[in-house]
Amino acid sequence: MAVQITTLDNGLRIATDPMAELETAAVGVWVDVGARNEDASLNGISHVLEHMAFKGTERRNALQIAEEIEAVGGHLNAYTSREQTAYFARILKNDLPLAVDILADILQNSTFAAEELERERTVIIQEIGQTKDTPDDLVFEHFQLAAYPDQPLGRSILGTEEHVSRFARTTLQDYMGTHYRGPGMVLAAAGGVDHEQLVDLATKAFDSLPSDRGNQVLKAQYQGGQHFEERALEQVHYLMGFEGLSYDDDDFYAAQILATVLGGGMSSRLFQEVRERRGLAYSVFAFSSSYVDSGNFGVYAGTAQGDVEELVPVLCDEINRAAVDINEQETSRARAQHKAGIMMGLEAAGARAEHLGRQLQVFGRVIPPSELVEEIDKVDAAALRRVAARITKTPLTVAALGPINKLEALEITANRFR
Amino acid sequence: MAVQITTLDNGLRIATDPMAELETAAVGVWVDVGARNEDASLNGISHVLEHMAFKGTERRNALQIAEEIEAVGGHLNAYTSREQTAYFARILKNDLPLAVDILADILQNSTFAAEELERERTVIIQEIGQTKDTPDDLVFEHFQLAAYPDQPLGRSILGTEEHVSRFARTTLQDYMGTHYRGPGMVLAAAGGVDHEQLVDLATKAFDSLPSDRGNQVLKAQYQGGQHFEERALEQVHYLMGFEGLSYDDDDFYAAQILATVLGGGMSSRLFQEVRERRGLAYSVFAFSSSYVDSGNFGVYAGTAQGDVEELVPVLCDEINRAAVDINEQETSRARAQHKAGIMMGLEAAGARAEHLGRQLQVFGRVIPPSELVEEIDKVDAAALRRVAARITKTPLTVAALGPINKLEALEITANRFR
Repeated sequence: MAVQITTLDNGLRIATDPMAELETAAVGVWVDVGARNEDASLNGISHVLEHMAFKGTERRNALQIAEEIEAVGGHLNAYTSREQTAYFARILKNDLPLAVDILADILQNSTFAAEELERERTVIIQEIGQTKDTPDDLVFEHFQLAAYPDQPLGRSILGTEEHVSRFARTTLQDYMGTHYRGPGMVLAAAGGVDHEQLVDLATKAFDSLPSDRGNQVLKAQYQGGQHFEERALEQVHYLMGFEGLSYDDDDFYAAQILATVLGGGMSSRLFQEVRERRGLAYSVFAFSSSYVDSGNFGVYAGTAQGDVEELVPVLCDEINRAAVDINEQETSRARAQHKAGIMMGLEAAGARAEHLGRQLQVFGRVIPPSELVEEIDKVDAAALRRVAARITKTPLTVAALGPINKLEALEITANRFR
Repeated sequence: MAVQITTLDNGLRIATDPMAELETAAVGVWVDVGARNEDASLNGISHVLEHMAFKGTERRNALQIAEEIEAVGGHLNAYTSREQTAYFARILKNDLPLAVDILADILQNSTFAAEELERERTVIIQEIGQTKDTPDDLVFEHFQLAAYPDQPLGRSILGTEEHVSRFARTTLQDYMGTHYRGPGMVLAAAGGVDHEQLVDLATKAFDSLPSDRGNQVLKAQYQGGQHFEERALEQVHYLMGFEGLSYDDDDFYAAQILATVLGGGMSSRLFQEVRERRGLAYSVFAFSSSYVDSGNFGVYAGTAQGDVEELVPVLCDEINRAAVDINEQETSRARAQHKAGIMMGLEAAGARAEHLGRQLQVFGRVIPPSELVEEIDKVDAAALRRVAARITKTPLTVAALGPINKLEALEITANRFR
């Protein structure tokens, strides 16, 4: 692996990870802005901006953007998370100049034409409706709201219909001007790419980015609590968790491996106890997600209405038990899963470009696979037990959606961790 | 590319696609059995069998199966479709012998212990519940039911709670004995693999497969019709389609490229008209799926309750218009998308193993990428217009789920194609 990184005068970092044998490439821009940069009146604007970036520039209308990339067999996509917004293309390797030109164009010269904005509002409102119809996604929104009340990190990335209907064109332009700045952006590419070529292309194409840093985000205030929604569904979609670990926590890797031991594969504790022994769920898993200054650690299960009374104490028992009796054998198995996952990720251009973009944003550097493997190898069972004990001392958050009449109150569940 | 294929005496075909630069491998078994092999009393049994294959053999219990593969960082997965059942592993390349040993064990020596079967029934019933809570999946089941009434191809792959609760252990064993036979199975691997090694491993491991062919399936009788379900959702999940093309149809590739022109990317007709110009949906796409003797061609959109009256005529207009005025420029763009997709798929071990397994099952041979590209290059705008005209002469199928009180009757929609 020969990752190279160059920083332009305007602060834009350019990272490449060439894979000589590939005929295709992945290239994208990762911007350090997302839903947690939005105050209450701006909820959803990062995501609206992501949509509007595809709606026309001074040189291309929306159809031309789509046609140009698809005419060469490529495709464009984008996502908005709570801390980042990303725009990326998958292409044949000779089409890198076109992809960079389009990415630079939509991120610097979007016009936000009034009629395009009006139409796109309705598309986003349809997207909000679709999310509301997807209970195993929606319950994660409920969790976030309860964990981080009254602050940007707790609000939906999509915002509300009211917000989306209201943003003015100038508000979008101001928000983009504030947050899309060279030092907060990374242009990353992997696959059939050459670093010098990408630097040349980017130096010319990204010539109008502001070179000073944008605003910082408010510190996260994890609080915990509950958000229950009664709905006529087949299953109770149930999510329970705690404050987890930030990216810079010494136990960051241990938290991820704990999630694997607890609920990361067929041999995990939750899969075995909840699904294999008790048949209480088809989908059950644990997760460890991080922010720059906070994180979430939790477990999800979808269960039948009548099974929720059995499910909740079992989930609590398994989390409590993890703090006491995780052993070296299962820790070793989880380490092996993470290390193999790194090897598999290295084989995909898209995953490698994403790795560059996200790591430069989060850690300020690209962590080599060999270092990731070293960090994983350092994690032992004691570290996992320590993390499990630590997270369960934070306030509990519970989110549930479905036929929840048999679901116990938050205080009862919280008492299971005392 | 150097695909090699060997057929064992028992009929098992072994295919490899080595990728010398990879440290990992994908290996799996594709079996020519699925929901369309099930008569009414056996609905769901292929899928139950897929689950039970992980529940213990003479040498390993369920936990040991999971632990052995995950201890080396690998993972096992499986799926059941209407015509195939697949079991596969992703592993580091040196663990190929272990993966083959486990696959051979679970496919030849599963014991279907009574207590495991009882527990797994409840897991599958939870899975059925989860699918019912996922409207954009469920509407495809509704479509299938309306398109192929009163026949195996129309029924749900998961079966019903009643069926799943009932299958006896001996019924599962009989079904497996009937349908898991050498000539109907393919062992395929890609990535860091060696053909001779895999043949050696498989010759020893797959030594108890019956060597005669299983039963043939009933011919599909596409009929068309409607399946509407009123439900309190945010969106109407709407799926409209026709009988499509079987795998051996001369226009098989043209049908896939037609789906791309109509609704396969941001520059497609449906994306532009339904989403970009009218804001009627966030998700809208076209699909062409094939069976050995039939197929489906259709379009999906999720739309707000009040938008369905505008949506349906627009979808019909776009399908009708495709038969008249698809031009060479958009056809060329769709060809480029398909060809780039082939290149991207070639870079992933999992996709290449899947390609081997499925193509040997469907076509009896592995189609080289160069031939796929040639076939795609042969497709012109006239072929797409011809396919569009042809499919719209078949009976219409409509499935819808959600707040459908404003949805027009099937006959009205059908008349839009006359």
